[in-house]
Amino acid sequence: MNKRVILAKRPVDLPKDEDFSVIEEPIGQLKEGEVLVKVEWLSVDASQRVYISGQRSYTDPVPVGGVIKGLGIGQVIESQSHAFKKGNYVSGLLGWQEYSKLPANHLTLLPPHENPRLFLGVLGITGLTAYFTVNELAKPKQGETMLVSTAAGAVGSLICQMGKMKGCKVIGLTGSDEKCQYLTRELGIDGAINYKKVENLSQAIKAACPDGVDVYIDNVGGEILDAALLNINKYARIVMCGAISSYNKKTAPPVHYYPLIISMSATIVGFIVFDFKNKYGLATKHLSKWLQQKKLKFSEHVVDGLENAPSALRLLLKGENTGKVLVRVTSGSPKL
Amino acid sequence: MNKRVILAKRPVDLPKDEDFSVIEEPIGQLKEGEVLVKVEWLSVDASQRVYISGQRSYTDPVPVGGVIKGLGIGQVIESQSHAFKKGNYVSGLLGWQEYSKLPANHLTLLPPHENPRLFLGVLGITGLTAYFTVNELAKPKQGETMLVSTAAGAVGSLICQMGKMKGCKVIGLTGSDEKCQYLTRELGIDGAINYKKVENLSQAIKAACPDGVDVYIDNVGGEILDAALLNINKYARIVMCGAISSYNKKTAPPVHYYPLIISMSATIVGFIVFDFKNKYGLATKHLSKWLQQKKLKFSEHVVDGLENAPSALRLLLKGENTGKVLVRVTSGSPKL
Repeated sequence: MNKRVILAKRPVDLPKDEDFSVIEEPIGQLKEGEVLVKVEWLSVDASQRVYISGQRSYTDPVPVGGVIKGLGIGQVIESQSHAFKKGNYVSGLLGWQEYSKLPANHLTLLPPHENPRLFLGVLGITGLTAYFTVNELAKPKQGETMLVSTAAGAVGSLICQMGKMKGCKVIGLTGSDEKCQYLTRELGIDGAINYKKVENLSQAIKAACPDGVDVYIDNVGGEILDAALLNINKYARIVMCGAISSYNKKTAPPVHYYPLIISMSATIVGFIVFDFKNKYGLATKHLSKWLQQKKLKFSEHVVDGLENAPSALRLLLKGENTGKVLVRVTSGSPKL
Repeated sequence: MNKRVILAKRPVDLPKDEDFSVIEEPIGQLKEGEVLVKVEWLSVDASQRVYISGQRSYTDPVPVGGVIKGLGIGQVIESQSHAFKKGNYVSGLLGWQEYSKLPANHLTLLPPHENPRLFLGVLGITGLTAYFTVNELAKPKQGETMLVSTAAGAVGSLICQMGKMKGCKVIGLTGSDEKCQYLTRELGIDGAINYKKVENLSQAIKAACPDGVDVYIDNVGGEILDAALLNINKYARIVMCGAISSYNKKTAPPVHYYPLIISMSATIVGFIVFDFKNKYGLATKHLSKWLQQKKLKFSEHVVDGLENAPSALRLLLKGENTGKVLVRVTSGSPKL
């Protein structure tokens, strides 16, 4: 039998336990070209809040009654395809379930690695998102000031470190004093602001970035984007990799200071990581090298048990994580 | 004596007559390097609403008691500079006044032209703004759909025509049925929407642009920007040349659908025309040629008399003009 987490109903605001159901279903026979994967680790991503909302997006929403869409890694336990054999480690949209039966072309073979779950994090979509944000879109120059929102998150913390590698002054925005300390002491960035504690965020950014903001990495939208806009310099670049403030809402919280984009000749650019599919190889090579050289640190926040995946998503949306949120699905997965 | 329009107090909402005063002052002696210009024509621009608001912008705000900043053209009547001689036509920030006394390096010598006021319009900032919007930033490709806000305005109507020259399907947004007719019949664009008459602007855009919007030229912000965002295609480019909806307000009206910038991998770029100063020559050459070839039509809305400049600005901000708003300052200026 296959334990699966399905969408019971479309969540309003923060997803609640009753928005999900855990069911058991038979796995069924493999068809020609299909592969059966035992799911070991699942990636928990803010974008999953969008998939379950039914909103227009770059991918089809999860229907009510459907298995929650999600990236995962696991081991092939049966294959009806020449492309994979038993024992291979693979990644793909395995979904919130113990076993995933997918056509071979929906899976990616992972190279041998002592920590295959890193392909969900620093060597996967998370690391690639950070890499393209900095290296393809923001392109910060040495000496510029870079402001990063959700800076202690999985993507944000990598962006901060890459900003430092580029010779920038990096200031992070995050939601607790512990995370501020993590950013400045562990990751060595130049400053961190606990946006929940300051009275006037725009003023706090001004104090931390007296020369203004040249590059702003937005993962939030709403008031935080507005506070950043009030501090941008001429020719500032704003990269939007997410709008987490909108994910629990029908419409995103308002932004008011967009006319500064005109007077500051600034650019806002959005992207999804798949836009750079043809550069995954090169990016992963760089990320692996930086990881080996210990130029990149990468934290993980592990939640145990498939049935706890909904609470892992909630934790991420509430910003209670530091680093990458992962669900360890099977009791048989290697220990951390 | 020199008749001058000064800022009496900072306007709230739409500027009222009592926000301005008309005064008479002696011109005073020319200093070494200064030039005295008899102002003939003034350009009325939405950006002047920003200058008089005291807001942070790319240029210093007009102080209370100061002459209203504004582009104009006129004839040199006295010169203490080798750069200009009596009779020369010049352009520059002459201000809302009959005579302007300025350092020579604040003025630009105009080439001989039968209609020197065109250097305030299609051959000046207006035409250059349209040119750089289309040719440097939006870069529309043949067959793409281009949506233009304030399409019957001075800049918008030029952008529409340049979009057609690039082989785009061009749809204009404007505020009256007469302007819709002007756009489709006179300028030959593919469709026009009277945004004041439609119940749901986003639906109306969808009906007019069934293949989605590849390029959107925004001069408004707020609800109109949101309605456009709801229709953008993958890799859409949005160029902001103005945010007229915000000019009478302390903060701009909200925008909510910015998360579509992420899922559609879109770009919003703002600019001011001075960013492209080093390309003015080439751009003006193109604009002159297109004008001679009758590829560009350019409407003017002339208001007579310096003392009517405040009402000319109000008319522009209310969108009651078709084409470029100009103030004819002196009774001695050539007739239209």
